[in-house]
Amino acid sequence: MAPRVLYAGLAADAPEWRTEMLKAAHEAGVEIDFRSAPPATAAEAAEIEYVLLTSDGPIADLSTLANAKAMFSLWAGVETLLSRPDLPASTPLIRMVEPGLTIGMTDYVLAHVMRYHIGIEETLERSRAKRWDDVYPPLSINRKVGIIGLGALGGDVAERLAFLRFDVRGWSRSLKQIPGGRGFAGMDALPEFLSETEILILLAPLTTETKGLLNAARLAMLPKGAYIINAARGPIIDEGALLAALDGHLGGATLDVFDEEPLPPDNPLWACPNVTVTPHIASVTRPETAAREILRQIRQSERGEPLENVVDVTRGY
Amino acid sequence: MAPRVLYAGLAADAPEWRTEMLKAAHEAGVEIDFRSAPPATAAEAAEIEYVLLTSDGPIADLSTLANAKAMFSLWAGVETLLSRPDLPASTPLIRMVEPGLTIGMTDYVLAHVMRYHIGIEETLERSRAKRWDDVYPPLSINRKVGIIGLGALGGDVAERLAFLRFDVRGWSRSLKQIPGGRGFAGMDALPEFLSETEILILLAPLTTETKGLLNAARLAMLPKGAYIINAARGPIIDEGALLAALDGHLGGATLDVFDEEPLPPDNPLWACPNVTVTPHIASVTRPETAAREILRQIRQSERGEPLENVVDVTRGY
Repeated sequence: MAPRVLYAGLAADAPEWRTEMLKAAHEAGVEIDFRSAPPATAAEAAEIEYVLLTSDGPIADLSTLANAKAMFSLWAGVETLLSRPDLPASTPLIRMVEPGLTIGMTDYVLAHVMRYHIGIEETLERSRAKRWDDVYPPLSINRKVGIIGLGALGGDVAERLAFLRFDVRGWSRSLKQIPGGRGFAGMDALPEFLSETEILILLAPLTTETKGLLNAARLAMLPKGAYIINAARGPIIDEGALLAALDGHLGGATLDVFDEEPLPPDNPLWACPNVTVTPHIASVTRPETAAREILRQIRQSERGEPLENVVDVTRGY
Repeated sequence: MAPRVLYAGLAADAPEWRTEMLKAAHEAGVEIDFRSAPPATAAEAAEIEYVLLTSDGPIADLSTLANAKAMFSLWAGVETLLSRPDLPASTPLIRMVEPGLTIGMTDYVLAHVMRYHIGIEETLERSRAKRWDDVYPPLSINRKVGIIGLGALGGDVAERLAFLRFDVRGWSRSLKQIPGGRGFAGMDALPEFLSETEILILLAPLTTETKGLLNAARLAMLPKGAYIINAARGPIIDEGALLAALDGHLGGATLDVFDEEPLPPDNPLWACPNVTVTPHIASVTRPETAAREILRQIRQSERGEPLENVVDVTRGY
């Protein structure tokens, strides 16, 4: 029988997910029973086998779906889903890892790293001022770029930056090798890691350990003039401490995520001259690539093989 | 006997070249007789074995150095040296290929590719206008980037762009393979190459064949909204045709090189809103890395082994 798959994300996106999931199934030569209407009865909910989920979806009580074999978060970050008391503990929750999300994130991060590295805004200003004077940026081999979080996203960014010959360093909970770069792990290594990082990239999950990780003391460990690119979650940085650090110590920040989203119009970050605000668009799950990945996992599950990218609830990601 | 090496570039740079050449020799455990004063007599000129040369150097008559075993151009582009009637035909001229030059060029080109790809200026404008609206750029896998010229510089840029998952194409005189990309060769292939290129990078040498290569007809072959990055030589693009194409057809251009340099203050390119002028700084030979490369070749030559990167005078590079 065709696996029963429930889409439980934003209603507006349901048609695209239907199209892409059915296309992926067709390509794979399998059938799925794709549903996007919230189950009307407990019995209907109980027969759902796979759930595609976002924290802003229509299911008021996720525990009604506890029979499901897996829930796929359509977002890479799962902290909001994990905070819901109705999330069934017995059903594996899978965080989104898919090529479109990874490529888009790497594109965003690398564009802003190159922008800070080469000094795009200074370049544009000199051109507008009709100035012809030699200014050579340092070479990538002499530019220290640090990444906090070395999962699917951070790991991909690290690998590309190393191939672009940056002096890449990564910090993570447990030590991870960075081909062509240097790994740091644990709180004890954080001061050394931060003190050498000229461009800092945040791609860690929001957990009890990473919440407020970049407080005033740690921001002060960054070299004067350092840049921050936060494409992870707002609360990993203490917003008040960041605002203070931007007024003198830091060179600037590009922020895609915030404590409150959309960023309120009166939030002082908007008016900071050295802050670039982007509206949580650094990357997005793309149904055309994500559907194939979800289907691949559904088929693995149906064959009795283990699921991948399962969230460890105690770890928080 | 220590090889007699004459530095014949700008006098201001002589001390740095002396330091770096002697350092490179010391590291290699060899001696060189490094001179930076122009030879006072014909006999003194005749005993020079290797010359480090720029077209703005102090030697009025290069033919006095015809005894040299090799002349090293300190610049990657040799068209001005080749145009000098006093350049001795019997002495191999070597164009500069060295890691610092390559890395700096790749940094510059990739920064501007990423800037156009992700839309950095639009990003900055939206942030300044406090706009929170979802705009996702296309993924690198769907962005067609074309490179004209696939030598040491163009080849390195192509390889890095392919690793960043761009849809990379390269056009060159003779067909070159691009790992992960697609090669085009010869004039017949130029229309197809141009018609698909959203971001065009120029890294070809200036020769009789490339002068005026991008004329009005060829600029019109680029898709509407295409961007150009010229880090090669100004005259490869017809400047008048470029100005016309920038007024509607092209999305914009970043230009590091011009028919006349410095770019005169009244040149209309300065005032073009979609043009970024950089003052021939895309890359530069860095003595600290170039000296090792020159010394490596001097040692090869002294052992009787063939020189590399020798300019083919009929080809022009």
